[in-house]
Amino acid sequence: MLPLDTKPQLIAIDWGTTNARAYLLGRADSLPVVLAQSVGEGILSVEMDAADRDAEFAAILERMVGAWLDEYPGLPMITCGMVGAAQGWRPAEYRTVPAELASRGGLVVVDTPRGPLPIIPGVKKSQPNADVMRGEETQLAGVAADLEPGVTATIALPGTHTKWATVLDGTMLDFDTAMSGELFGLLADHSMVGRAAAPAAADHDWRPGFDWGLKLAETGRPLAFAAFVIRSSVLDAQLPADQVPDAISGLLIGQEVLARAAALQGSHAEVLLLGADHLVARYQRALEWIGVASRPASAEATIRGLWQSALGAGLIDEEQ
Amino acid sequence: MLPLDTKPQLIAIDWGTTNARAYLLGRADSLPVVLAQSVGEGILSVEMDAADRDAEFAAILERMVGAWLDEYPGLPMITCGMVGAAQGWRPAEYRTVPAELASRGGLVVVDTPRGPLPIIPGVKKSQPNADVMRGEETQLAGVAADLEPGVTATIALPGTHTKWATVLDGTMLDFDTAMSGELFGLLADHSMVGRAAAPAAADHDWRPGFDWGLKLAETGRPLAFAAFVIRSSVLDAQLPADQVPDAISGLLIGQEVLARAAALQGSHAEVLLLGADHLVARYQRALEWIGVASRPASAEATIRGLWQSALGAGLIDEEQ
Repeated sequence: MLPLDTKPQLIAIDWGTTNARAYLLGRADSLPVVLAQSVGEGILSVEMDAADRDAEFAAILERMVGAWLDEYPGLPMITCGMVGAAQGWRPAEYRTVPAELASRGGLVVVDTPRGPLPIIPGVKKSQPNADVMRGEETQLAGVAADLEPGVTATIALPGTHTKWATVLDGTMLDFDTAMSGELFGLLADHSMVGRAAAPAAADHDWRPGFDWGLKLAETGRPLAFAAFVIRSSVLDAQLPADQVPDAISGLLIGQEVLARAAALQGSHAEVLLLGADHLVARYQRALEWIGVASRPASAEATIRGLWQSALGAGLIDEEQ
Repeated sequence: MLPLDTKPQLIAIDWGTTNARAYLLGRADSLPVVLAQSVGEGILSVEMDAADRDAEFAAILERMVGAWLDEYPGLPMITCGMVGAAQGWRPAEYRTVPAELASRGGLVVVDTPRGPLPIIPGVKKSQPNADVMRGEETQLAGVAADLEPGVTATIALPGTHTKWATVLDGTMLDFDTAMSGELFGLLADHSMVGRAAAPAAADHDWRPGFDWGLKLAETGRPLAFAAFVIRSSVLDAQLPADQVPDAISGLLIGQEVLARAAALQGSHAEVLLLGADHLVARYQRALEWIGVASRPASAEATIRGLWQSALGAGLIDEEQ
């Protein structure tokens, strides 16, 4: 049962490449609660050479949130994700690290027929190497909202392009991206290594193959050498063929956590993990293997991050 | 002009996955010379469940070499490559390192309607990690035939699956495989990194992007992190988009030679490279970058290796 003061206060939209999710948010005990939600098309549905891109994006917005605004006129809106990319509705220039995660800085406001729509910008860095994120900064703002003040936390967002970020008092200090998820797909589904795999049984345990991959990562060989060892080990009967995908996963995530090991083992702090359950479980196992504690973060991080960003931008009040 | 004593002595066949190349070989100054050549279907053209696989393989052989044997009855034959794999004509069990490269050991002989056809087996290792080759051992036998006695040489065969082998007095001591070529294809043609690339001009110089990739390799990051840096560096205008494929190549080959650097820099010997010219040029540049000398090996290594193997197997005589 929701508390009595859950009147709608914000429309928050997570607007990505292939789809968009809109939330009608109220507040309970200072936290956002979802009162209603809807889905819409991602930015790829609007062609770059469309005659009136504004009108096409406005139409998607209308289908997602029009009814809510008819019932509650004047509600503030906010959005994050690829909607702010060059191929999105309006390009929002990246913030640069160190970047305050929930602030009004860099917000780009689109004047829509339904009122102003602020877009949360992505974050980039140029030194010691270039890196970019767009959308993940809002998930990080959500996770960061619950962190202890004065403590630097490491947050990992496992996925196609896994983000590793360090956050202190609501500011992202640094981040790096590992395309382990994308490499997993390429190796498992499109390479000679994946072709060595046999189908797994329904009660298949992913851990033996994954641990085998972790040990392979520990040899320190580059991926080009190590991935071929997986294939050869099946031919040499050292690895069961149904463990090939698990071994690829263990190798990639193992290389990833080993590259972070020095920083993580020195920090004595646990890593917060936000992502799909099966991925979080694998990262937890890999981190445990190098002696680093970790725990899953709240799955509601994007909504919480949109909420925090709306607070930071002054679209809604801290208490009401 | 060929010397007078070039009468046919051997039919040598390089029989791979997608095609086969047959050579009618004579001898000049103790070296093989190609008197005629023909091509045929690779092993994938014969289905695993074909009713009479022997007959189908024999038919390919007949089309390639039948006319030669009609003219020169009783010529010995020899073949190497995937024809000796489980999916080939007759499985030839791998030799194990240390493996004498041109010997009669492990040869599997198929009784064909045209006489015995010995198949040169591949080579495998199980420690410290599994690895396999099939076909490359014959190229290595060809390169090894010209090496100085008593000196351990490193031979690299750049390609889809680059082989790095150490050879002493005709014996392969050890080898490792790096699937850098396959990873290049996956990253350049099927990943988000490759999507950041722009077409290159006709007079494009591959070296600046390649060197950029070498420096990226030097950071020691795993491929999952480093490859994403290429994409981000294009977005951040640190790398021209038309250098993306070169940078991927430099990163992969850089990681590969760095992994061999300790062994190579200690040996004070040059690396022999056998492969496509554009690949050999890239490996030479990467090796020079870590201070290791290299030179291209003779492009005729497969023919020479088949010849050496026929000598080792006693199919032909040392001098005649």
